[in-house]
This record gives sequence, structure tokens and C-alpha cells, in this order.
Amino acid sequence: MTRDALRKLIRTAAGELPADTVIKNCRVLDVFTGQFRQGDIALCGEQIAGIGNYSGLIETDAGNRYAVPGFIDSHIHIESSCLSPEELGRMLVPHGTTAVIADPHEIVNVCGVRGLDYMMSAAEYTAMDIQFMLPSCVPATPFETAGAEVTAQEMEEPIRREKILGLGEFMNFPGVLSASDAVLDKLLLAKRNGKLIDGHSPGLTGLPLNAYAAAGILGDHECASVEDMRERLALGMYVLLREGSACHDLRSLLKGVTAENSRRCLLCSDDRQPKTILREGHLDSHLRICVEEGLDPVTALRMATLNAAECFRLYNRGALAPGYRADIVLLDDLTHFRTDRVWIKGQLAAENGVYLPPVRHHDISDVMRSIHIRDFSGKKLKMHLKSSRVNVIELLPGGVVTKKSTAEVPVDAEGEFVWTKEKGIVKLAVVERHRGTGNVACGFLKGYGMQAGALALSIAHDSHNVIAAGVSDAEIAFAVEALREQNGGIVLVRDGRVIDAMPMPIAGLMSDQPGEWVAEKLEALHEKAHTQLGVSRDVDPVMTLCFMSLPVIPEIKLTDMGLFDVNKFTFIPLEAE
Amino acid sequence: MTRDALRKLIRTAAGELPADTVIKNCRVLDVFTGQFRQGDIALCGEQIAGIGNYSGLIETDAGNRYAVPGFIDSHIHIESSCLSPEELGRMLVPHGTTAVIADPHEIVNVCGVRGLDYMMSAAEYTAMDIQFMLPSCVPATPFETAGAEVTAQEMEEPIRREKILGLGEFMNFPGVLSASDAVLDKLLLAKRNGKLIDGHSPGLTGLPLNAYAAAGILGDHECASVEDMRERLALGMYVLLREGSACHDLRSLLKGVTAENSRRCLLCSDDRQPKTILREGHLDSHLRICVEEGLDPVTALRMATLNAAECFRLYNRGALAPGYRADIVLLDDLTHFRTDRVWIKGQLAAENGVYLPPVRHHDISDVMRSIHIRDFSGKKLKMHLKSSRVNVIELLPGGVVTKKSTAEVPVDAEGEFVWTKEKGIVKLAVVERHRGTGNVACGFLKGYGMQAGALALSIAHDSHNVIAAGVSDAEIAFAVEALREQNGGIVLVRDGRVIDAMPMPIAGLMSDQPGEWVAEKLEALHEKAHTQLGVSRDVDPVMTLCFMSLPVIPEIKLTDMGLFDVNKFTFIPLEAE
Repeated sequence: MTRDALRKLIRTAAGELPADTVIKNCRVLDVFTGQFRQGDIALCGEQIAGIGNYSGLIETDAGNRYAVPGFIDSHIHIESSCLSPEELGRMLVPHGTTAVIADPHEIVNVCGVRGLDYMMSAAEYTAMDIQFMLPSCVPATPFETAGAEVTAQEMEEPIRREKILGLGEFMNFPGVLSASDAVLDKLLLAKRNGKLIDGHSPGLTGLPLNAYAAAGILGDHECASVEDMRERLALGMYVLLREGSACHDLRSLLKGVTAENSRRCLLCSDDRQPKTILREGHLDSHLRICVEEGLDPVTALRMATLNAAECFRLYNRGALAPGYRADIVLLDDLTHFRTDRVWIKGQLAAENGVYLPPVRHHDISDVMRSIHIRDFSGKKLKMHLKSSRVNVIELLPGGVVTKKSTAEVPVDAEGEFVWTKEKGIVKLAVVERHRGTGNVACGFLKGYGMQAGALALSIAHDSHNVIAAGVSDAEIAFAVEALREQNGGIVLVRDGRVIDAMPMPIAGLMSDQPGEWVAEKLEALHEKAHTQLGVSRDVDPVMTLCFMSLPVIPEIKLTDMGLFDVNKFTFIPLEAE
Repeated sequence: MTRDALRKLIRTAAGELPADTVIKNCRVLDVFTGQFRQGDIALCGEQIAGIGNYSGLIETDAGNRYAVPGFIDSHIHIESSCLSPEELGRMLVPHGTTAVIADPHEIVNVCGVRGLDYMMSAAEYTAMDIQFMLPSCVPATPFETAGAEVTAQEMEEPIRREKILGLGEFMNFPGVLSASDAVLDKLLLAKRNGKLIDGHSPGLTGLPLNAYAAAGILGDHECASVEDMRERLALGMYVLLREGSACHDLRSLLKGVTAENSRRCLLCSDDRQPKTILREGHLDSHLRICVEEGLDPVTALRMATLNAAECFRLYNRGALAPGYRADIVLLDDLTHFRTDRVWIKGQLAAENGVYLPPVRHHDISDVMRSIHIRDFSGKKLKMHLKSSRVNVIELLPGGVVTKKSTAEVPVDAEGEFVWTKEKGIVKLAVVERHRGTGNVACGFLKGYGMQAGALALSIAHDSHNVIAAGVSDAEIAFAVEALREQNGGIVLVRDGRVIDAMPMPIAGLMSDQPGEWVAEKLEALHEKAHTQLGVSRDVDPVMTLCFMSLPVIPEIKLTDMGLFDVNKFTFIPLEAE
């Protein structure tokens, strides 16, 4: 800040100079005392100069609406929206979101620090402020081939960046508890640089949770119960109440939020798909749920503003007060939380659901060619089965957790699986796409209900290799090839031709198209997967496959290295014992 | 922190290693949820490893006492205790104080940055953690000669020191409001270095207060009313509720503390004399008053712990939780707040009112010879009055604020004032003692009630020149000389001899003796001032003189530059118009 800028701010606050903008006639939320005050908000440059009775060069009437601080999403993976940061910003700002804390875990698993660089550069193209956490666990597991490995040493430079607030969710809590050197070095790097460490510790309790907190972990968004939440709060951890497209914890956790403990409770979405944003919104929907569940609106608003700002040490955010960043939301009411207007850094950024700044996009060429598959062909899909009794990945409702079962499958003379409608089992293939290892692994998937063709995608948590399901090697191979040609994304194949596809040129994880287009396209792909490929209506055709490669979620998964038994924590053969 | 230390902490928290110390059987305050939990506190090195069921190398029974975080005094001038930092620490720790935020405004006015260096070095000799604020307004005014001038340029180096949290109370609020370059440069220096700026804005309200807050001022300890407090809280400022030896704001301000706004309320003493510490204690007495006034004990304790830690960004303080600094107080109850034991950084530091670490003192020679008076003699006290009607500094009850009045005084042939019992007026003299300017100014003091001799001291806010009152030039001159010989402090003179004295070798502001001795000595000096010099029982003989030089408090004061009319904001002649 220059001397002149500070002088102008002070003199504007004192009423000696006209404000750049005055938002007249507001009910201004004072998050510090929990009261609404009638008054004007005077803006000077990017900051709030004062609250009171002001006149300005531009004066706009709030019509006695509620003025509240801009909302802060305390934990989100932008990649899960399948949208570029610029595009996600365009969709979220009209819902009152002025800042998000993003953990680019997915793209860094694909592109390493180059992926982080892209996200941080692209973030500059949206009015929404995107603060970053440095992914802490890349690769997520040693049981699959990731696009990058980010050790403490690789973190040395990025952790120092101003917009990197700390380490993202430290999923490797077993590593913390076993205090391995590699993990301690990452934790110490963050501490040495005065950066935060976000957490991820589903199910952890008692002394192990004490140990996780003692390591310096600041927060957790994986609370499944009020007990989880209370225990973490008592240990000094912030609790991020999550309501995403996949996970819905908010309503149940709200039962544990009290006036006494709410100070350390925040709101987050973790993942938010375009469809959900278009239908329900973003943190405005979180706030709606809070009030529906009986929480005082001011307490709810604090979770979306002041508490998040305090947690992430964004000292000039989360409140409407002199010297604070002019991130302001005008609300019609405190039940639906309909957003009328949004100011970011003193500029009107959205009105009546429309994002106002010009939409520009950052060049994506650095992260565009991310599909590096070597000598792949249908032959790589051959199984050479020694027995027709095989281990099967059986989908359970929800489509993320699976059951390890066995089945008798039709096998031809060469020991190859032959798909039949009756069995309801399809071939699943994971093709390594980062380092050209040539790794291809196959398995059996039950409950997906495919009747024809193949579906392939380049989103497969957490390493995001290519995963495909299909009724024949030819269809699968064709789908994988088509996916390679379109630089990743999703392809639906039937009878040797692509019946529909969504390219995701950004690291094979994100589209470069508008959110509305992506929402419609995903809808269309799902519909075609059901109607033309016969995928069961009980499963989400895309999301289900995304999680079939994640070897940390029970009970049996397939990575590019083979079939993995999560309970035994080891690879197993295709053939059952 | 080393890798091994972190590993040990984690494994101790997990119960895999015995803790260094376990405080068994506590009612542990969880400031985050506001509840007390039965359990043990496991310590590992300087930190808390965990709360739960632990065993350790040393196990000590808390006897089901309340375990609470160490208390943090959010604003104190150590010099006002007349004690060295080491000695003040020895006296405060047994009352549960484990950290103070010190503003060494007085010694820096005398010694400049050398005074700061001494305080910071001496601070290392006490177990009490002393964090510092860099005095922001030295000199306090241009109307007296101070020992130093600390501009933004001089601040460049100290502001970067780790233990300097920011700029101390920014008393020069008119300078902030007028946005003078010199002031803005100081504010910007703090901002650029990510440091805090503490405030001091008595009586400021409305748009000017908005301007003061907009400048980035974090807190204020000068609230006189609940309205003052509410207005500051609403503007995002922390309010430091003060209860000192001189100022008593706590009880009245507590009426404005609510569950909704208490989060930004802290406790401070500002100044605390040894006598007060011995009789009433420190923050333990603040807490007692809070509960007497009906505040929930947990809310009160938060003001003394978590809130202060959050305000001053001492992230690992203010709570009992894994990874936090092991600053722990065991309390017998939540009404008297009697402190049983105190741990600081994992070490037992006090028990049953006794400070346990060895008491060592830092060398004071750098700040010892601070009285630099040039060519002073009785002649310098001559007034050469042109008229016998003179302007008089009339003491008002309280002895800080004065009334400008006039009087007819006896004057001899040379135009010199002749003291008479009847008039009840004595000569007041201020002798510049920093730069050898030779400045000496005289005036008339009414209501002090002196009957004989002279009293001189080297504490005179804010520049701390030598101030003396006496019934004759000879007695005053003798007192000033005696004070110079003893390197400052306080002297009582009668009939040309010193009847009692307290040397204050540390910058002429602080004794190098134990607190108990200082308390007794001050008591004795006061008594002799009343009985042998006839100083009125209505005034505090020492404190009153301390404030006669402070040209920012109405209505008329005397500095080394002359008689100052605070209302007219200008110097005036001795003779009345």
C-alpha cells in the first residue's frame, strides 16, 4: 500500500473525501458483535473505508438489504467441478462467494508443480479470490502410477508463495502417526515457513487423534458425526462442515454446532459439480441449510466469513469494517440467502445472478497434452486366465465403496473373458497415462450393468490414469484411443464409433468450456450411458468409474499396477483362490 | 523444531512414549468449546502432547483442580512497576501470568532503541514470556525534550525482530487523522512487515474513529464507557479491558461484555505497581472482578487466554491442546482464582505463590547513566517575574488533570517568588536530563500542600525529565543534584539533606531491587513526604509530580521548555495577563 493510498483511505473514512463508491441504506452485519446496523458502506479503492453516513462519487442504493461479508469456501478441489478456475469463479461469485481455499490435489497428481502453476495463473483471471493449499500427498498411494511425486524438497519453493497458505489436507495420517521422515519433513517445512497444515482424518479418535493434532494439523473436513466434530474442536482443530456434490455432512454435523463452539466451525464444499451449482448454488445453499436446521443466521454467516478468515489468517477478510477488503454481499433475506449484488475488492462483480467482469481465460497449453500412453493396443487387455473363477469388484450402493466377491465367468480357449448379458459383469481396464510405463491392468466389475460398447475417462482418483469399462476388448481399446486423441475427458463408444464425448483438455481433468455447457454435456453423457450402453440406473456412470482406482477405499480396487485388495492392503491375482 | 522433537511429540501424544511430565487428574478447560474435561495433561518438552489418560516420567497430581491456559496481559508498561523485567516476571508468574505484551514506551523515550534492547535482553532472564510492541510515538510530543526520537527509519530494524509483534499504542491519533507523512510511514512500515498496530484513542468516536480503524489500528485500551467499547468492537478493533494501579475501567466496561462480543475482548493492566501486585495480584484479580460482576468464568478466562493469543497471533498459546505451548495454570476455584501451580514451556515455574526458577538479572550498565544535566545550579531556578500575578498549575482531585488558575504571589526585589505557608503554592521545576540542553523551566503548583524541603524525581511522563517541587531554590537545587548523583529515581530533601531516597538506576525509571523492597520503599517515601515535607494527604506525592509534565493532559503543564497551556496548545508566560 502506498502512502497516498493510505492517506486517501483515512481521509475517506473521516468523511473528508468523497468515497469511490457508497452502498447506501444497508443493514450491515457486524460479525464482531453479531448485530445488524443501519448505514452506508463507504468504499475506497479495494477497501472499506467506513460504515456510517457517507457520500461518494458513485452511490448505489441497497434498498435496506442485508450487507454481509463475502463468503469463503474453506476447502474445495476446483478440478472436481470439471471447470477451469476462471469458469468456476464465474459460476460461484453470483452466489456470494468471494474467496475459496483451493487444494489442487488432482491436477498436481497429474502434472506436478506445473499443474499448480497453471491453477495459480488461471486464478488471476477471475474476480473470485482463489487462495491455495499445496497438495501434501502426491502421489496419494504407492499402489498406482501418478504423474508426479512431490516431496518436501519439491515443496521448498511453492510453500513460500504468498498465495499458498499451507499444506493441503494431509490424507496420509498413517504417515503422520508413524512419524516417517518423509512426512515429518513436509510438516516441518510448513512450520518453518509459518504456513498452515490442513487435515483429513476420517475415523481417527482418542490418542491417535491427539497425535495428529500435536503434529500441527489445523483442521478437518472429514467429520462423519457430531462426536468426530466435538473431539476435533476440543483438540484445537477447526472443523470444516462439508456439503458437496458427493458428500453431504452438513445437516448431521449442524446438530453439534453451539454458540460456544461455533467460533471454530467453517463451511466447505470439498467438491461442487456444475449441475449442483446451477441447481442449488454454493455457500448460499450451505447457509440455507444451516438456517433450515435451526442455526442462528448470524452464527451461520460467521462460519462462512469471519471464522474462515481467522482460520486461514486472512486478516482483512470476513468482516465489514474499516480497512477490510471490500468483499461485500447484499442479501434479500436471511432464510433463502438470495444474493442481490456482490462486490469484490471494491468492484461490483455480480448482480442478480450474473457475473459482471469480462470473462477471459488463461492459456492451457502447459497442461493440455497430459495423456502419455505407450504401446497400447487391444492385446494389452488380454487376461490369460488360469481359471474361470475370478475375483470381482462388486459395486455397492453409492458406487464408491466396493465389495470383494468372486464369480464364475465365461472363458474362451485362450483364457480370455467373454462378456455375456446374463452375468452382468464387464471388463474394467486401467491404462497408465502419465509416464508411458505401458502399464495396463484389467479386472472384473459387477453391478455396473453395461450392455454394449465401452466408456473411458481420464479422471480416476487419485492418480487419474485412464479407466475404462466395456463389453469387449475392441470397444475398450477404441475408447482408450479416442480418449487419447481428445486429450482426455470422457468418451462413450458403441460398435466401434464414438457416440458422445466430453474433451477435458486441462490435464484430462477439466473442460475448457462454460459451466452450463459442461453441466448439459455431463447430463447427456449420463443419459446415453444408460440408454445406449445400458449402464444401470442405480449407478452414476462416470462418478462410479472415477473411484474404482482409489486404493484407499475398501474393499477391492483396480489400479494400473493390478487388482488391489484394500483390506489385505496388497495386490491379488485375477483368479480367485 | 527438529525432526526428532516432532517425532517425540507425536509418539508421546499417541501414548507410545512416556510423557516428560503428566499433570494427572485435572479439570481441563477446553476454551474452544467452553467445557471442562476430566483428564491428564501430557507434556513433551515445551509443548502439550495430549489431553487424556497418560503416564509419564514425572507424574504430578492436580488434585482435581482446574487446569487453564496461562494468562496473557495484553498491554503493560513494565516501567510503571518501577521494576526490572526479571523482577516483574518473578512477581507476576505466581499469579498465573505466563506472558505479557509489553510496550517499553517510557524507557525508549529516555534511551531510544538502546532502552528497547535492554528490555528485550532482560526479558530473557525471566520464565514469564515477554513479547514486545515497538513504541510508536517517541517523543510523545514536540513540547518537551525527550531522550530520543524514533522515526520510521529508526524502526526499520527493530520492527523485524521476532519478539516484536508490532507498534505499541499509537497515541498520536491526531497524527493518524491528519495523515501526516511521518505517521503514515510508521503505519506502512508495520503493515509491510506484517506486524500489528496497537491503539490509544480516548474519546474518539464516529467518522474519526472509522478513520483511525481504517488506518489499521488493531485494538484500544482507552475505552472509558460501554459505548466507547461497543463502537470499537463494531469497527473490528479488539478492546483491552484495563484494570491498573492508576486506571480502573474493568468493572464499568464489563457491563458491555456479552457472549456475542466477548471474542474480541481482552484483559490488560497497562500499569501495575508492586504494591498492587502484592495486595491484589495481576490478571487473577481481573478474573475475580469479572466473576464478581457476573461474567461467566469461562468467558472471563477466554479474555485472559485464547482471545489475547488470537489478537496477537500467538497461535500456540491461549489454549490447552496438543501442540500448544505448555503454559498451564492450576486453579483452586473459579471465583477467587487462587493459583496453585504454574507451568511455563513445560517447566514448573511457580507453586503456592512462590516463583521457582533461579532469579538472575541482566546487566544494566547500558541504561544506567541516564541523567545528563548540564550546567545546572540554583541560579537556573530564578524566575525574574515582571508581575506578582502569575499563572498557576492547580491540582484537581486525582492529581493528573490540572486547572489553569492565577494567583497573587509574594515576590522579592529581584522578582523572585518567596514561598509562604499561607499561599499553599510551591515552585515546580523541570530540568532537562537527556541531552544536556541546560533547559530548566519553572512554574507554580497549587494544592500539593508542601510545607518544607523538596521532592525530585526522574519519572515525568512522557519524556521523563527531572521534575522537582520545593519550598526554596536551595532545597530544589540540592534535590536535583542528589538525584543526579544517584542516577535518578526519587529523593526527598529537607534542610539541605536527603531524608530518604529510592535510586532508579535503570534509565532513571526502574529500581534494580526486589519488588517487595520497592513497594516498602515507595510506601516509606510517601509517608515521609506527607509527615516531613507536609505534602497534602489528598495527593499521591510521587504520582502527582509524574504527570505535571505531560502536555497532552489538560489544562496546564510544565515541561523543560516552559509553561504549557494545553487548551491553547501553546506555551505561556509565568505572568498572568
